[in-house]
Amino acid sequence: MQHALAVTRAGDFSAWYQAVVDQADLAEESGVRGCMIIRPWGYGVWQRMQELLDRRFRETGHENCYFPLFIPLSYIAREAEHVEGFAKEMAVVTHHRLKMIDGVLKPDPDAKLEEPLIVRPTSETVIGAAFHRWIRSHRDLPLLLNQWANVVRWEMRPRLFLRTSEFLWQEGHTAHATAAEARDETARMLEVYRSFAEDVLAMPVVAGEKPAHERFPGADNTYSIEAMMQDGKALQAGTAHYLGTNFAEAQSIRYQTEAGDLAFAHTTSWGVSTRLVGGVVMTHGDDDGLRLPPIVAPRQIVLIPMLRDKPEDAGVVQFCESLATELNRAQAFGEPVRALVDRKAGRAIDKRWTWIKRGVPVICDIGARDVAAGNVTYIRRDQLRSGEKIQSQALLRAQFVEQIGALLGSIHAALHESAQQRMADNIRTDIVTLEALAEHFKTADGGSGDEDSANADFRGWARVAWARPQGAALAKVEQQLKALKITVRNAPLAQQAITDQRCVFSGEPAREFVLVGRSY
Amino acid sequence: MQHALAVTRAGDFSAWYQAVVDQADLAEESGVRGCMIIRPWGYGVWQRMQELLDRRFRETGHENCYFPLFIPLSYIAREAEHVEGFAKEMAVVTHHRLKMIDGVLKPDPDAKLEEPLIVRPTSETVIGAAFHRWIRSHRDLPLLLNQWANVVRWEMRPRLFLRTSEFLWQEGHTAHATAAEARDETARMLEVYRSFAEDVLAMPVVAGEKPAHERFPGADNTYSIEAMMQDGKALQAGTAHYLGTNFAEAQSIRYQTEAGDLAFAHTTSWGVSTRLVGGVVMTHGDDDGLRLPPIVAPRQIVLIPMLRDKPEDAGVVQFCESLATELNRAQAFGEPVRALVDRKAGRAIDKRWTWIKRGVPVICDIGARDVAAGNVTYIRRDQLRSGEKIQSQALLRAQFVEQIGALLGSIHAALHESAQQRMADNIRTDIVTLEALAEHFKTADGGSGDEDSANADFRGWARVAWARPQGAALAKVEQQLKALKITVRNAPLAQQAITDQRCVFSGEPAREFVLVGRSY
Repeated sequence: MQHALAVTRAGDFSAWYQAVVDQADLAEESGVRGCMIIRPWGYGVWQRMQELLDRRFRETGHENCYFPLFIPLSYIAREAEHVEGFAKEMAVVTHHRLKMIDGVLKPDPDAKLEEPLIVRPTSETVIGAAFHRWIRSHRDLPLLLNQWANVVRWEMRPRLFLRTSEFLWQEGHTAHATAAEARDETARMLEVYRSFAEDVLAMPVVAGEKPAHERFPGADNTYSIEAMMQDGKALQAGTAHYLGTNFAEAQSIRYQTEAGDLAFAHTTSWGVSTRLVGGVVMTHGDDDGLRLPPIVAPRQIVLIPMLRDKPEDAGVVQFCESLATELNRAQAFGEPVRALVDRKAGRAIDKRWTWIKRGVPVICDIGARDVAAGNVTYIRRDQLRSGEKIQSQALLRAQFVEQIGALLGSIHAALHESAQQRMADNIRTDIVTLEALAEHFKTADGGSGDEDSANADFRGWARVAWARPQGAALAKVEQQLKALKITVRNAPLAQQAITDQRCVFSGEPAREFVLVGRSY
Repeated sequence: MQHALAVTRAGDFSAWYQAVVDQADLAEESGVRGCMIIRPWGYGVWQRMQELLDRRFRETGHENCYFPLFIPLSYIAREAEHVEGFAKEMAVVTHHRLKMIDGVLKPDPDAKLEEPLIVRPTSETVIGAAFHRWIRSHRDLPLLLNQWANVVRWEMRPRLFLRTSEFLWQEGHTAHATAAEARDETARMLEVYRSFAEDVLAMPVVAGEKPAHERFPGADNTYSIEAMMQDGKALQAGTAHYLGTNFAEAQSIRYQTEAGDLAFAHTTSWGVSTRLVGGVVMTHGDDDGLRLPPIVAPRQIVLIPMLRDKPEDAGVVQFCESLATELNRAQAFGEPVRALVDRKAGRAIDKRWTWIKRGVPVICDIGARDVAAGNVTYIRRDQLRSGEKIQSQALLRAQFVEQIGALLGSIHAALHESAQQRMADNIRTDIVTLEALAEHFKTADGGSGDEDSANADFRGWARVAWARPQGAALAKVEQQLKALKITVRNAPLAQQAITDQRCVFSGEPAREFVLVGRSY
């Protein structure tokens, strides 16, 4: 079958991903090592995500603010465990001026900074220093902040949206009087992410706690939402951390209690990033390109006038424009619908394929016949083909407008349902021995090969019993995981109490189930 | 008279500015040289500005995108004039990893970048490189992009919002087939800025063209909007540049014309930044703190329940909550009203002053008496005092709700009118000799003193005749301006043709009027 992309998911998932990102005009390499250019269509998706997340953060009592891009080296050095986690991948500013030296532009040796500045990889340290100044009394708590920002973590093997040296994200940072309140906050924001992924991005996720060795540097507990991509690998799509008093102790974030004592605040942080765009691609994309969940589609409906250099053309354009106006007055998901008439120069058939590849949920080719009949002929992007054929449907114009909210709603539901089914079908729950696990995840070359061969086949995840190993036992498990090229994704929050099971790795009595699999 | 701030505008304008920024919770020093923390209230103002500007950019056909934070040194070196203008003040990344060396965290010598990266001071070079790839044919033009981003220009004497090493801004970048279209775009965006400043920020500005020596590095023409602050100094509040084919030639941005030839594209760029927040402070603030133009006030109305630990308290809170709900259903400036009930712990009188200093347009203290009478007692922040007294008014609740849109509208109009009057009253138009100009702008110590003495008195601006000097003649004028500690702000677009006048600097026949004055 002929598809819009030159590569298929089954043929080469990684090349397919790059093709979708490229052909849907989402992003491209910038020529600056590890940094991407987010193109207007991709940025439009991100801006929708921002808008809808921002509303949820406000509704849960958070305020936005902005902290510096640069963090003095000494701030980072102060928090030992944090350094350990990030030290290997930071951009370091050492000079504040360039100078022409012997005809070549160079960092000016006279403008060397006394203390190097780090381009923020995350802002716990610099925000902690502000919390230290701002928090005096229990009346200042809780302090609930969020920032939208760019961060930099040097990447040796960048991939657009998934792993880039610079990425865009939001980072929530909060301080609380008690551990219980901080834990509640962590759980609340994890739930915001879970609900956002499912209800907005139509991307099913499993919310759970990360094992000890996968925690954020400096956190007491790290929680994540994990989504299954169409190659069976996991994408960590958002994290929320309960930081205990670790950062508070390192940065002296203390408050006077009602009783008059001084106590350390309990802090949290949580974030999602432009990585979510990559998650949407790998959850919903097909061999014809992107399929966008309607709530974050910059345009939900594109009307393409089919013009033939005939007198009827004016009527077709007029029909499209008035239809778009009507649609934009309608509501879907509690917001105005976003319809566009594509009046650019070019052939209608080329335009159709452009919007198919870009993943617009509903695409309408409008010709003179439609105008005459008062019809709207439309393609549902989520049901593009019937066999090999492109599948279109027609409705009377008034019906189409009346049903547009329901139509978009049903597209969202269908995308979610299909992804949900795939995830449910691909979590093995019957693996109870390390041998069976190894058999399931073994690679073609017996495990010694390169990443490509390990990634070629669909493996999905396994739900296995876990004893929460620590210390040397954990180190041993980490070796076992590494040999299988898998990681522990998380221990799902929604799980039944475990009884009489043995940890698949250590054979010790299990305390919970965890999901394991390959991942991005 | 006792004011909310410890310093007054008349007493020490610069200290007053800092006091407002601090007491209105807008921003603070971060501890990172030259970088500020934008606090939630300040960020709320900026976010409103973003939202409203973003809408205007979309309405004029622009799309948002995102380009890398880092620019390879070679990109910057390519555009000679551009380097000249920016080379002195850039943050330079030289390493991509830290390492613990003898117990001290340092840039890892093994992770030195082959080519240093510059933290973007502006993005013409990196966006130009993308334009080079994206533009092939006349059908790709115009290309109309905008990005919201942080940029860094090293500042030795930072001031919050006005001059910080890192600031937030938007930068528009467009490419066009013809000079005429690019010039139209430049004019269109300058007008967007002018209208935004006046109609949204209630900040009167003069739109005009910068003289040759004040152009953006690499521009053929630079235009600005200039606002008069309450100390008589000018604030450049936005700029738009016609870049001709300069960047296109440096970066090979060419397109195939309809006739099949290759031609260079004509490009523009334009931007406004968080500096606008400083402009709002210095345009509208008074000795009691900030006064926010209602359209960008994060909260337009704050209701403060006056509680007395009596049974009536519940009714007061209930009255406030239901009033806020009603107000939030009303419209002002074509959007829902933004009202808040301040239910934090604390005395009502302290809260009132907090919101006065933060500049909320309408502040209501609601007590049991108001509830009983069905009244709303309110303070208009723009008419805070009558003599020494705080001035409040009362309306029946239904009337208050009904009139809220009009009330906020009249506050906007009053702020604009007062600032407009001040600007109109303080542009001298009768200065025709250099001696008179020197006399007007002379400093207490005859011009040789420090900046503080030069800034102590209100001078306003002068509109003087200008011959558009070039080369050596311009260099001489620059010396004259420097001696007077003034700059040419711009040549207003709205001016009558000049006849029979001599340039106040050179004595040559004048070609236009320009505004001169001190500035930020």
